[in-house]
Amino acid sequence: MVQGTAPYTVVPDGSITTPQGFRAGGLHCGLKKTPRHDLGAVVCEVPANAAAVYTTNLVQAAPLKVTRDSLGDGRLRAVLVNSGNANACTGKRGEEDAFQMRASFAAAAGLAAGDVAVASTGVIGEPLRMDRVLDGIAKLPAALSADRAGADAFSQAILTTDLVEKTGCVKLEIDGRTVHVAGAAKGSGMIHPNMATMLGFVTTDAAIGSEALQRLLRTTTDRTFNMITVDGDTSTNDMLVAMASGLAGNRELTEDHPQWAQFAAAFRFICETLAKAIARDGEGATKLIEVRVSGAADEAAARAVAKTIVGSSLVKSAVFGADANWGRIIAAAGRAGVPIDPDAVDIRIGDIVTLERSRPIPFDEEAALAYLKGDTIVIAVNLNMGAGEAIAWGCDLTYDYVRINAAYRT
Amino acid sequence: MVQGTAPYTVVPDGSITTPQGFRAGGLHCGLKKTPRHDLGAVVCEVPANAAAVYTTNLVQAAPLKVTRDSLGDGRLRAVLVNSGNANACTGKRGEEDAFQMRASFAAAAGLAAGDVAVASTGVIGEPLRMDRVLDGIAKLPAALSADRAGADAFSQAILTTDLVEKTGCVKLEIDGRTVHVAGAAKGSGMIHPNMATMLGFVTTDAAIGSEALQRLLRTTTDRTFNMITVDGDTSTNDMLVAMASGLAGNRELTEDHPQWAQFAAAFRFICETLAKAIARDGEGATKLIEVRVSGAADEAAARAVAKTIVGSSLVKSAVFGADANWGRIIAAAGRAGVPIDPDAVDIRIGDIVTLERSRPIPFDEEAALAYLKGDTIVIAVNLNMGAGEAIAWGCDLTYDYVRINAAYRT
Repeated sequence: MVQGTAPYTVVPDGSITTPQGFRAGGLHCGLKKTPRHDLGAVVCEVPANAAAVYTTNLVQAAPLKVTRDSLGDGRLRAVLVNSGNANACTGKRGEEDAFQMRASFAAAAGLAAGDVAVASTGVIGEPLRMDRVLDGIAKLPAALSADRAGADAFSQAILTTDLVEKTGCVKLEIDGRTVHVAGAAKGSGMIHPNMATMLGFVTTDAAIGSEALQRLLRTTTDRTFNMITVDGDTSTNDMLVAMASGLAGNRELTEDHPQWAQFAAAFRFICETLAKAIARDGEGATKLIEVRVSGAADEAAARAVAKTIVGSSLVKSAVFGADANWGRIIAAAGRAGVPIDPDAVDIRIGDIVTLERSRPIPFDEEAALAYLKGDTIVIAVNLNMGAGEAIAWGCDLTYDYVRINAAYRT
Repeated sequence: MVQGTAPYTVVPDGSITTPQGFRAGGLHCGLKKTPRHDLGAVVCEVPANAAAVYTTNLVQAAPLKVTRDSLGDGRLRAVLVNSGNANACTGKRGEEDAFQMRASFAAAAGLAAGDVAVASTGVIGEPLRMDRVLDGIAKLPAALSADRAGADAFSQAILTTDLVEKTGCVKLEIDGRTVHVAGAAKGSGMIHPNMATMLGFVTTDAAIGSEALQRLLRTTTDRTFNMITVDGDTSTNDMLVAMASGLAGNRELTEDHPQWAQFAAAFRFICETLAKAIARDGEGATKLIEVRVSGAADEAAARAVAKTIVGSSLVKSAVFGADANWGRIIAAAGRAGVPIDPDAVDIRIGDIVTLERSRPIPFDEEAALAYLKGDTIVIAVNLNMGAGEAIAWGCDLTYDYVRINAAYRT
């Protein structure tokens, strides 16, 4: 809940290559059937302090093993990403392929293998067409650039069923130096945290140690990427990687730095921007749903209620149908697994009060219909029990979700 | 998992009025817009030992309070049910209405108020049209009968978006007497246990005390009604009521009775039959999905994995699309919240082995497609870790689920 005057400024034409030191690019190597980009990389010209969070699914794809290995020293020079094939449930061969991707890109880009993280997204259980991947890797370093075109090509290369690219960039002053935080992400289906629930990449030129960056990444993820859901399914491949080049020249940021809170707010804004963009672009979605829970016993309870409501198939279907069905909202709150007082719930849909202390309030159905036909639906639930609050984001459940997922593999 | 020779016989034309002592009926009082039955009752000619389980949703509809009150002494003479309006989130007035339904039916049928349970299903948050309900209640006793027509009218009166009635009846010999167990249920949307997740009514002429019946109902529910899911939403109105007239004349059944296991098997068969019928008739469903998990660390882990798989929107969409997408199955297993060995999983779809010790096994796509076009899809997952096993039931996710729920209230 970013409130008040933001300590950062949005850079409208910014991208993941706006922070100093980063180049990016993407190309089509042939993993996708259509000639869209399916291989990309972000490279830092200096060793970047880095951090990552991964899916909590116990079934984890091969590239996660590679990235964990590369991040052992808290530093990265590059992230290599392919789409079109998740390299998950591919056994020993999949692991060998992921390590070979790392080694090949490191060789092509003049880096050490341990400097390169690898991420994959796409179909589960099919071996990678390594001939195509290796051809693409050989050409990729020449496709990298520090301009917007490189960042755009990378953003396209990480997409699967996504309809739009998801990016963001802000800047702020720290120690009198201009610091940028930027990000790019993909994710549309199999979206349900715990963890990143997608692929996400955050770049910054701030000077920040890898341990502070890891702590910041984890707490921020809990309030952003882990608060979105599209379909309740948690992927085997989720990964969020942050890289800090340090080239802005500020004093190293830690929790003790007088401007830590400002940097953390900028970092959170980028993560929240990417997370909301993923929810809005959920498979088949026509609307972003934002559920704001207040008055919960504590923040954990607020999160549980917000995520249960935004994940309810019945609530999602009602929003698709522009139906102000608050009964489904309170029913979802009641099964969230945390204590609520069933007689004390307030519910607003947009500005329309539908329930006050659990008593239905007559409302203008026409006004509700008009609001629910918009593209962003805010549901506010006050449990009137305590001070806990949280926001979760999701999307409506539509015919197209079913169409997309009934035919994905074939 | 009922295996071996069943100790009971299915009564194909049996119904909830087949057990001795029960009459049932239904009529249209005007809560549904179309002239379908929307008010019904089951009445026992003697005080029946009774038991019930209720929704775990913290938001509970008014009739649950009435039924809990009537069941305080472990006995019931009747259950009164309306459909078309859930009488949930209706505040003080809703409670008064539910108690008035009980009192009015008791008076009309010549019973004491405390002998009558009340259940409701339908739209949340709208007050009951009590004029119509009371008119219907006055006419209902004359509509009750002990024949099949009465049971059918009752089965119809409890339906909402259901497409088919859900009933079952078996008989077995206990102490040389013929004992019947029968049931009727409704449920199509907002179906996700914990608990009955619908309305269910079990009748038997067995002699069994209310405490033993309550224990049996609870353990059976955990393995039947609590193992189905349609959409992950748990209703505010779920209720499962069992009534035992004792008129079969057997010695009172307790866990010490030499034929307890046989009776429990018959009771479980009825509950499983009703639960599977609800899953198959899930809103918009075209197929029943049965997920059999074996080799889990324990039964609780097996249940968690089975329910997570059968509840996965991606698995459900894939089954709708006849796509043998085992990747989504193992991904769901991996996020079930219980330990699994990601390298040791076997998956079969019907008889088709798709994964063995987590290695993809090439299979005949044509054969898989043919199997997945059937109306019952069995997914078997062996975690190869222990002896825990469980079965869960659900249905596919279809365009019609979205259509039904995008337009339910309006």
